[in-house]
Amino acid sequence: MKYAVIGTGGIGGYYGARLAQSGQDVHFLLHSDYAFVKGHGLQIDSCAGSFRLDRPAIHNDANDMPKCDVALVCLKTVNNHLLGSLLPPVVRDDTLVVLIQNGIGVEQDVQERFPGLQLAAGLAFICSAKAGPGRISHQCYGHINFGGYSCRDAALLQRVADDFNAAGVKAGIVEYNEARWKKAVWNMPFNGMTVALGTQTDMLLRTPSTRRLIREQMLEVIGAAQHLGVERIDESFADLMIKMTDDMTPYSPSMKLDFDNRRPMEIGYLYTRPLQIAHEAGFAMPRLEMLEAELLFLDRQNQRHQ
Amino acid sequence: MKYAVIGTGGIGGYYGARLAQSGQDVHFLLHSDYAFVKGHGLQIDSCAGSFRLDRPAIHNDANDMPKCDVALVCLKTVNNHLLGSLLPPVVRDDTLVVLIQNGIGVEQDVQERFPGLQLAAGLAFICSAKAGPGRISHQCYGHINFGGYSCRDAALLQRVADDFNAAGVKAGIVEYNEARWKKAVWNMPFNGMTVALGTQTDMLLRTPSTRRLIREQMLEVIGAAQHLGVERIDESFADLMIKMTDDMTPYSPSMKLDFDNRRPMEIGYLYTRPLQIAHEAGFAMPRLEMLEAELLFLDRQNQRHQ
Repeated sequence: MKYAVIGTGGIGGYYGARLAQSGQDVHFLLHSDYAFVKGHGLQIDSCAGSFRLDRPAIHNDANDMPKCDVALVCLKTVNNHLLGSLLPPVVRDDTLVVLIQNGIGVEQDVQERFPGLQLAAGLAFICSAKAGPGRISHQCYGHINFGGYSCRDAALLQRVADDFNAAGVKAGIVEYNEARWKKAVWNMPFNGMTVALGTQTDMLLRTPSTRRLIREQMLEVIGAAQHLGVERIDESFADLMIKMTDDMTPYSPSMKLDFDNRRPMEIGYLYTRPLQIAHEAGFAMPRLEMLEAELLFLDRQNQRHQ
Repeated sequence: MKYAVIGTGGIGGYYGARLAQSGQDVHFLLHSDYAFVKGHGLQIDSCAGSFRLDRPAIHNDANDMPKCDVALVCLKTVNNHLLGSLLPPVVRDDTLVVLIQNGIGVEQDVQERFPGLQLAAGLAFICSAKAGPGRISHQCYGHINFGGYSCRDAALLQRVADDFNAAGVKAGIVEYNEARWKKAVWNMPFNGMTVALGTQTDMLLRTPSTRRLIREQMLEVIGAAQHLGVERIDESFADLMIKMTDDMTPYSPSMKLDFDNRRPMEIGYLYTRPLQIAHEAGFAMPRLEMLEAELLFLDRQNQRHQ
């Protein structure tokens, strides 16, 4: 299959390279690293085995890319306004666009701009980041779940999952809303709290007061999800997420890396949007609303000092 | 009258010096600054007129202090365990002890240790801090309200207020619970939030997200107070406090100064205790509970790096 990777960072670079390595026809869109990768290739340092793509198919202009069967959108959501120009060149009527992005509400917004587009969510459970030009550092985990949002061709979505599995990336198909909200159970507490307190996941869980707070914040997300009709999620999922994070190496979530590098944080889809959805449904999330307020404050300070 | 000042910092130093300047017999207990003040006196830089006490009555051991009519306790509450040895030398059966301290529950705890003691609360509305050895910097405001807690001699409490007024410090008598909780309406949001976000009062109010959050936190305190039967406090008091703070110069509350100087923060009486009291009465304060959790985390980090 022909894949487009829109955004070749820690996530898109890793998954795209795995697919290319397994023989798929993968076209990467690069921006700042284009010249470097043209000359040096794409290096993947991975806990699951490192490798290099010497001559990946790369492009620095979406208009030069071919129409693809599948487009993997791996941009930060703060750059989603670019999709208006980045998506049309690579999509046909039957292309499946997979948004491998954080947060709640992204598919809805992209769909509004491209009403006929087939959309799916990609939920990545992976610790991976760009370590330098043309260099991706995949530290641990890596599996991905796909959830159809407006996918008319279920066989195509299944084939994407099969391609990932064949490339050595564990992949499955899940119910869209359940998947997005389950991911939010981890994302909403840990992304924001590591920024708010200038720390990593391990310290938050090793300090009794914040360990309790993280769990309370998780229960707010779970409560909102249940309130919105998402089934198969209850309190035990919070304990599972905490247990999983206890077993991880100390970790800085993507929002913390964005903050530390003075990049804008993905507050919109990670906080503002889910809080708004829950609020409109009559469910209060006071701790996560407070965290959003703190993050908006810190983001403003951070951007101002740039 | 004979006054003892237990703790000669920004608050005790200022009020004690005003009383001494007006002719009262004021005995100051000093610790680290004793030798300096012995040699150089006590300098008060004040927006209400600066002055110096050349030879204040100072002591570096409570056992050398005389029995007093009134003891003004101006320690940080984190040092209240010292009262067991500091108070007995200066109090008689009829001494009035005024706790000019922050928080909720201080009188209750001191009373438990000294069952017969006459106690009152002193609520100081003042921006004042120690600027150096023997030097107090009083930046603005200054008035103080007294509330009897276990004060058998109402005339004595009134006389203290009269002495303050005669010394140029506006003072009044208020209902104890109302006074303590009203002060908490300002203290609980601003002390913690300036620490949590590393900022000052003005920035919190100039940023829309935190301005809203500060008001929501104030409403939690007001709700708790109402729930506990404190009358004459409603939502309009939050707006009054915000308006007052809008008009203040950018300010770092005492907890922020403690944090910046790596001193332990007064989390116990400013957060833990009022949260516990509200919780036991069935009133939830999720935003301030979250703030307490953040402060406990930051305090731990701060003390560790000392």
